[in-house]
Amino acid sequence: MSAIDETHDPARTSWIDSANGHPDFPIQNLPLGIFSPPAHHARPGVAIGDMILDLSGVGALLPPAVGHLLTGTTLNRLLGLPAADRVAMRRRLSELLSDPAHRSTLEPLLHRAEECILHLPAAIGDYTDFYVGIHHATNVGKQFRPDNPLLPNYKYVPIGYHGRASSVRPSGVAVMRPNGQRKAPDEDVPSFGPSRRLDYELELGIWVGQGNELGHPIPIGEAHRHIAGYCLLNDWSARDIQAWEYQPLGPFLAKNFHTTISPWIVTAEALVPFRLPQPSRPEGDPPPLPYLFDASDQRRGAFALELEVCIATARMRSEGDAPVPLSRGSATNMYWTMAQILTHHASNGCNLQPGDLIGTGTISAAEAGGLGSLLEISQGGKMPVSLPNGETRAFLADGDEVTLRASARAADYVPIGFGACSAVILPAP
Amino acid sequence: MSAIDETHDPARTSWIDSANGHPDFPIQNLPLGIFSPPAHHARPGVAIGDMILDLSGVGALLPPAVGHLLTGTTLNRLLGLPAADRVAMRRRLSELLSDPAHRSTLEPLLHRAEECILHLPAAIGDYTDFYVGIHHATNVGKQFRPDNPLLPNYKYVPIGYHGRASSVRPSGVAVMRPNGQRKAPDEDVPSFGPSRRLDYELELGIWVGQGNELGHPIPIGEAHRHIAGYCLLNDWSARDIQAWEYQPLGPFLAKNFHTTISPWIVTAEALVPFRLPQPSRPEGDPPPLPYLFDASDQRRGAFALELEVCIATARMRSEGDAPVPLSRGSATNMYWTMAQILTHHASNGCNLQPGDLIGTGTISAAEAGGLGSLLEISQGGKMPVSLPNGETRAFLADGDEVTLRASARAADYVPIGFGACSAVILPAP
Repeated sequence: MSAIDETHDPARTSWIDSANGHPDFPIQNLPLGIFSPPAHHARPGVAIGDMILDLSGVGALLPPAVGHLLTGTTLNRLLGLPAADRVAMRRRLSELLSDPAHRSTLEPLLHRAEECILHLPAAIGDYTDFYVGIHHATNVGKQFRPDNPLLPNYKYVPIGYHGRASSVRPSGVAVMRPNGQRKAPDEDVPSFGPSRRLDYELELGIWVGQGNELGHPIPIGEAHRHIAGYCLLNDWSARDIQAWEYQPLGPFLAKNFHTTISPWIVTAEALVPFRLPQPSRPEGDPPPLPYLFDASDQRRGAFALELEVCIATARMRSEGDAPVPLSRGSATNMYWTMAQILTHHASNGCNLQPGDLIGTGTISAAEAGGLGSLLEISQGGKMPVSLPNGETRAFLADGDEVTLRASARAADYVPIGFGACSAVILPAP
Repeated sequence: MSAIDETHDPARTSWIDSANGHPDFPIQNLPLGIFSPPAHHARPGVAIGDMILDLSGVGALLPPAVGHLLTGTTLNRLLGLPAADRVAMRRRLSELLSDPAHRSTLEPLLHRAEECILHLPAAIGDYTDFYVGIHHATNVGKQFRPDNPLLPNYKYVPIGYHGRASSVRPSGVAVMRPNGQRKAPDEDVPSFGPSRRLDYELELGIWVGQGNELGHPIPIGEAHRHIAGYCLLNDWSARDIQAWEYQPLGPFLAKNFHTTISPWIVTAEALVPFRLPQPSRPEGDPPPLPYLFDASDQRRGAFALELEVCIATARMRSEGDAPVPLSRGSATNMYWTMAQILTHHASNGCNLQPGDLIGTGTISAAEAGGLGSLLEISQGGKMPVSLPNGETRAFLADGDEVTLRASARAADYVPIGFGACSAVILPAP
């Protein structure tokens, strides 16, 4: 696993003033993405304060292994490199952006982020979604099975299912409310129309780095080498469509109409100082099966990440009201680590590829203030949440804007963030 | 919908002798694929008898809209063309391969199929699997719920779920038995190891042609325009892994270790003479909801396709025994049409893309001789099938080779086939 090095030094600052003290993108972060400067085509970039550095113009200043991969419109080839190459790039970028000697060379390659378009950072080969937020699984399970919320496999199997890669979009792209078959408990037959129970789900996303060949599992001790970085992920969910369609093969049209991610890949390297021991399993829970257990992963498999969901309704925005938090919680509320997710996924020989995206599943805290979906907050719609302006929400209304944020914090280190993962709901077509 | 034209004329023959009377690839078929001639790189081709015509050398002889798309190593761009362009290409290819005047020009571009490597015909963006074989759904449901095999949504919703695109392989690539978590009913806790209940599933695959934009559903009357062609699909399934993992989010590692398809795209155009009325729903079944109903689709939505599964065990092959049929049945045993599958998939705005692959789900006949999986044939493993050499199979053994075949037949037309969809089982790693 990558070590803490000078790129994490809290004393290091950038000659780009807005980076110093920036809540998301100080020089200790250096997340990777694909962006278009005004009136130009897409290219790789790194976020630094309020600016984006155009990496396509910096290739000659970077280590050769990465320098020639910075010309396309996706980061897939970069993600496929060994972690050591990404580390070398990070160290060099940190040097370039901290040492004022490079200012005159790099300034022409800087663009104001607010004037740029952010794209998906990679062509997503396959998108998989997991279900490792145990409080979420318990809360949702309780609505169906009050006495036995978790199914017998939950503490043995990192539960996951395949999602839709084609409908993943970066933050900022509006989400159209889906039409679909809905059948309320008091209706005899389903009808087709706009979802009446549209929801968000707060998740983290894993960007797969180096892949594995079909038939060649990834041992748990090597899983971290295959993770290039992380993002925020909103797994928009139409609860009424989901309830009617999901038996026996799982969620489908309830989920695949749109998935929103934060567009910056926060690298595994940037998050090294924020790793924590995986919380102990509750007394009586079974230990992970051997193929999912690694002592080093248990010592460093969790993240000191604070997660937040905010809402801004159309009325709030038109009246200039600030977004309101719906929940705040910690990413430590995951029953399985990122390495366990990856190793389980490939344990049957399934091949992962650079640029594959894996969602963790909804991360809810145990406490009422940290629930990662409206389904949980409103207890299945029965207890709508009241907003400061008097509006209420059991589920999302057209015009609502939902924003996810994440911040990594640890004593003696500069906090870093993921940037916004945000979208507005449009009416059904 | 495409009309019957001179390319379907049963009197038309090819100057390639092996095409005339060929069970799969007479001149009336002309399926599209990607192949490598001996010691050469991959390129588009068309199967004709025992030969493959290298389309990368024929571009100048074809209509301009398609001619310039025949140089790459995938057919995605070709699949994305309007059906009229594919029809024009088909008519021209039929002319070139029937009129002996073109023999001297084309002969240098012909390769013996048995000497070539067949690849996937397209880069598969997303792979989705449906569950429209009603007898399969009933047979499997009976094993879990004897009194109520079909869930209440089955006759309203074309049930589907997302599969893994990265592990789809063409016919001929061996399948490694997956390891995974298995828990038999008499075991207290799961163990990790090779699947003990490895199975095949007989399915058809749909190749998506023109796509739709995110948020723009495909009306049922237009669905056929978005289907470029079909293949055979073997949805290999590890039943023990599936039984333990699938609640509540559906099959995952039980399926995503490998999917085998026949490598030739049998075009929608080639199958026009073999279309049939969709069978009437049993008395008392609800009609399709309006978004899934189209009178023309009901009149022509089914296919006169005979499907067959054969097995050849390692011992049979070493002793020179011919493969043995495990089942024979008709593709009319689908509760939903191909158009209904496609329209439902996009009904929530989900975007389909050229080269997406959609499985129908296992197609079983109502009769015992036409069951599309060993799970059904052996009644969950309780009634192993006996092979002529005395071997028995409840599920697949290492060394077994499973081959799917399909043949389209209609009075007054030359039958066409899909070619083999075949693979051997290798031991778990």
